[in-house]
Amino acid sequence: MAHRYRLDIEYDGTPFVGWQAQHNGLSVQQAVEEAILAFSGDEIRIRAAGRTDTGVHARGQVAHADLSKAWPADTVRDAINAHLRPLPVSILEATPVATDFDARFSATARHYHYRILNRRSQLALDLNRAWWVARPLDVDAMADAARAFVGHHDFTTFRSTDCQAKSPMRTIDRFDVRRDEDDIFLIVSARSFLHNQVRSMAGTLKLVGEGRWTRTDLEEALSARDRTRCGPVAPACGLYLARVDY
Amino acid sequence: MAHRYRLDIEYDGTPFVGWQAQHNGLSVQQAVEEAILAFSGDEIRIRAAGRTDTGVHARGQVAHADLSKAWPADTVRDAINAHLRPLPVSILEATPVATDFDARFSATARHYHYRILNRRSQLALDLNRAWWVARPLDVDAMADAARAFVGHHDFTTFRSTDCQAKSPMRTIDRFDVRRDEDDIFLIVSARSFLHNQVRSMAGTLKLVGEGRWTRTDLEEALSARDRTRCGPVAPACGLYLARVDY
Repeated sequence: MAHRYRLDIEYDGTPFVGWQAQHNGLSVQQAVEEAILAFSGDEIRIRAAGRTDTGVHARGQVAHADLSKAWPADTVRDAINAHLRPLPVSILEATPVATDFDARFSATARHYHYRILNRRSQLALDLNRAWWVARPLDVDAMADAARAFVGHHDFTTFRSTDCQAKSPMRTIDRFDVRRDEDDIFLIVSARSFLHNQVRSMAGTLKLVGEGRWTRTDLEEALSARDRTRCGPVAPACGLYLARVDY
Repeated sequence: MAHRYRLDIEYDGTPFVGWQAQHNGLSVQQAVEEAILAFSGDEIRIRAAGRTDTGVHARGQVAHADLSKAWPADTVRDAINAHLRPLPVSILEATPVATDFDARFSATARHYHYRILNRRSQLALDLNRAWWVARPLDVDAMADAARAFVGHHDFTTFRSTDCQAKSPMRTIDRFDVRRDEDDIFLIVSARSFLHNQVRSMAGTLKLVGEGRWTRTDLEEALSARDRTRCGPVAPACGLYLARVDY
């Protein structure tokens, strides 16, 4: 009988090829699976709520893992962590769950943060932790335009041409834009997202913040359902999978 | 005639041997001096308010530089930054100042922050940005004990045996300890500090937070004026030169 554990995971995406196992480099998934193998002897695949891309970070990724033995939860967390070091991945919590819990399919909401550092001078302490935008951005205009994304829409314009989802329809439940000194945070929530959707929306909102696009331009791009109408996709280093709800 | 500029500097100390030019690796000082040479042709030495050690960070280091030509301040900032990339060093501001301004000797107060991340799980996104302490710390006990450092004292116990300052007497104007979720910040201000003083005080306060030392133990160590009575020196990665006043 499998003993299923929910793993809450933080990682710095910089050195990884993304969440999902790939042939071209180390993924977070592979790193965690190898740590599980090293501590438990179980050679398993784990599944996560969000298949984050290369360079994308997580403060609250969630995965589930089926172990062959019923370890104490703290042992699972501490033992995986010990085998993950010195990689920048940390199991924040391990929790025993019923086998009908699926980190990907049971999720009811995913919350992403996109961080822009908006200042004249390049990044130093926050290099690879935010998108550096030197030109001053109009956060009020961005916040207003972001409201056009909220609700049920066809997001064809704002998904990667590689996106494998059957439907381009998604419902954005929240899209807030806030400034805290030089930091601008985009806070976006939905049950699920299309591939590159948050970064596509963030890159387009930057055009609005620069005054190069209006909210109307953004609304027209959305209703065009045409990928070529999207602004430049924002870089991975500003994106954080913040939390997943079940 | 020299044209003096004040430079406000942020850096990630991780890849550097510290502020001061050394023979065993790249220092922040050398990186900035080489960037100045590359843009202006001036081969100069710059002087900073705080000679931070290997791995110590700065959000508000201040240095002064004497250039042979009166450049616009924004040009100085942007040109040095362009030559610093991709190193994690950023000139936040360049400001023309009178030649009696000395970044080191004119400083009236230096403000350091020491950051502890106090949680069971190892660091990922904050690796090299904080001291990871897994055992829960009693912040109230730390804050109370920290008040024993405030005022004019002989800090022989809390300075490096390598410290070259003539006097071990220093005046701590402020020492606050605050928790914000898993983060604990030590906020320390003085006109000047001894070598390793903040890290020596931080390492000792951690013993108090763990319940291994009382405030009285700390006071006795202070009044002993004996380096061997200091707690373990806290690691460099948690220390930030936050601001300098003039």
